[in-house]
Amino acid sequence: MSEAPPPAAPLVAALPASRPFVAPEELARRTGRATLVRLGANESAFGAPPAALAAMRSELERIAWYGDPESTELREALAARHGCGVENITVAAGIDDLLGLAVRAYLAPGDAAVATYGSYATYAYHVTGYGAKLETVPYDPGGSQNLAALVARAHDTRARHVYLANPDNPSGSFVGADDVRAFADLLPPDALLILDEAYGDFVAPGDLLPEAIDPRILRMRTFSKAYGLAGARIGYCVADPSIIATFAKIRLQFGVNRSAQAGALVALGERAFVADVVAEVARGRAEYRALGERLGLGTLPSHTNFVCFDIGSRERAEAMVEALLDRGIFVRKPGAPPLDGHIRVSVGTASQRAEFAQALAEALATLATNPVSCP
Amino acid sequence: MSEAPPPAAPLVAALPASRPFVAPEELARRTGRATLVRLGANESAFGAPPAALAAMRSELERIAWYGDPESTELREALAARHGCGVENITVAAGIDDLLGLAVRAYLAPGDAAVATYGSYATYAYHVTGYGAKLETVPYDPGGSQNLAALVARAHDTRARHVYLANPDNPSGSFVGADDVRAFADLLPPDALLILDEAYGDFVAPGDLLPEAIDPRILRMRTFSKAYGLAGARIGYCVADPSIIATFAKIRLQFGVNRSAQAGALVALGERAFVADVVAEVARGRAEYRALGERLGLGTLPSHTNFVCFDIGSRERAEAMVEALLDRGIFVRKPGAPPLDGHIRVSVGTASQRAEFAQALAEALATLATNPVSCP
Repeated sequence: MSEAPPPAAPLVAALPASRPFVAPEELARRTGRATLVRLGANESAFGAPPAALAAMRSELERIAWYGDPESTELREALAARHGCGVENITVAAGIDDLLGLAVRAYLAPGDAAVATYGSYATYAYHVTGYGAKLETVPYDPGGSQNLAALVARAHDTRARHVYLANPDNPSGSFVGADDVRAFADLLPPDALLILDEAYGDFVAPGDLLPEAIDPRILRMRTFSKAYGLAGARIGYCVADPSIIATFAKIRLQFGVNRSAQAGALVALGERAFVADVVAEVARGRAEYRALGERLGLGTLPSHTNFVCFDIGSRERAEAMVEALLDRGIFVRKPGAPPLDGHIRVSVGTASQRAEFAQALAEALATLATNPVSCP
Repeated sequence: MSEAPPPAAPLVAALPASRPFVAPEELARRTGRATLVRLGANESAFGAPPAALAAMRSELERIAWYGDPESTELREALAARHGCGVENITVAAGIDDLLGLAVRAYLAPGDAAVATYGSYATYAYHVTGYGAKLETVPYDPGGSQNLAALVARAHDTRARHVYLANPDNPSGSFVGADDVRAFADLLPPDALLILDEAYGDFVAPGDLLPEAIDPRILRMRTFSKAYGLAGARIGYCVADPSIIATFAKIRLQFGVNRSAQAGALVALGERAFVADVVAEVARGRAEYRALGERLGLGTLPSHTNFVCFDIGSRERAEAMVEALLDRGIFVRKPGAPPLDGHIRVSVGTASQRAEFAQALAEALATLATNPVSCP
């Protein structure tokens, strides 16, 4: 046999090696620590609802069985929650999985997809990975998504997809229901609006777009954030039945963990638990803002479970990520201007927030005495 | 906004609606039962190793955290097991996920992929789903894969992929190491051999291809069968580092459940448990053969955790699947000749086997008095 495998398909061969994220496990190894204080991936510091944990534990007794490939029970519960039919819902292994499906199903190679430069990296990863063309517009100077620019870019590029994370990651900004509706109405008629509502649970339900299905809007939700099930890998898309049927032609039938299905079903009913998480996250955000003020750091308004602190420049923010890592704290840094001089910090528990506050103050002092030179 | 969403990308729009499998959950609902005796999906009737269950239970405490996207600990353990490096291994959400990656990475639309007609349906699903062309050869009359025909077809079609499930599903047949090696050597030089060893744990390790990596062979293994973790969704591919690096360009970074990673890591070390499962499965296969003889039904030799019973014709086999379902027992029927007159029955526990034996005898009697008319 030959010495080397044959080349990949041209589209994939041409892709750069890329990883949207370096994981805390890898950073911990690099720094010789068993674990880090995880404030970098916007996981919930408040865990999963105890009843959901109990359901997952119980379902492990049947983990030798494949999960229901249709996720019928969960989809029925989600349909009831959202006032739609089960034919409006696909369950998949998180929004990352759903974004891949949406790109694969609706973007042919070369098709344009419009997003804000520096918004959620995995969307860009899939667009590029499937051979479509990512067209971006910058954030507003204040860190919000520029809806008018997105609309203009969508028309200019004849985009088939427009991506809006709402609330947005990594900025934390939010666009209210009326503005989203007006935005959607201005998009090209053959463009889908990929509405990534991963952080939607941290916004008052009345501020989100009403539940009625618009045939060109794909709403994606997850159990990874407020529900505390990031490691379970489960999320869903609410969309027109024809879109759900299209996904069914190509999706991984058995892609969702059985225990995760059971956990999500129970978690969905734990509204008081989730409300408590949302309230505690709001307290944490206020604490972070106050911390920023105390230390002379601006913070961006956030409608999510994280806050961006302005560290002053890209170089200083990079140094800050490393300085916090040296102190055992994992945070991330947005990659694109005007956010790239910020660090993005998930709301931790009260004790994690205290630990972070101390480490941030120390690291700031270190950065002040060892100023980062501009390149 | 418009009344209907825009059309899917041409490749996906052209796909038929298809589902490789109808799940037992759906069949149970259809027949008004809470559960079925699950002998249709080749799940392990013997469950996961207790130590793996304990590890998964424990890891649920951290289910709010994403899993390690690199699965580093598990890949290190797998590399030690297989005598290769971590750079030879990708972990994903089961072989279904890995087959999708292999198709997407190495088949451009229109490229040919060769497989046995009627072999594992999800491979065909991905080949078609990504726009490649599935070229098939029939099973041998005895239900084995026809290696010479696969080789010839690969050359005739300039195939970039040749798929071999070994042991095979749904036939249960097996090709020894020397024959696989000779087969691989005869394939076109720019074809990859997709070696699906989902059932490899039921074969003596010495009968499998040696572990050394051949740059054109992708070996896929799963924790879904002998390890009893089908619902956890975790499997892996052992291949040349350049193939693993290619997968890394496109794979879902956070596609694997965190608890599943912990469970697989522990399960891998539970060799005595797995050996007991394999031994009990062998006893079950012998029992099924004897049952077939007693009832006058031929069975195919099997190297897996299932056995195919010859029911005589496609129509009779279809009627048998329904008759067993009426008795609360879920089995499946291979779709392609010469296997389509068989039912495929997973090895259950001793009590499940007894329940199946009785139901099969009853159903046969019913079929005899209500003969299925030929169309």
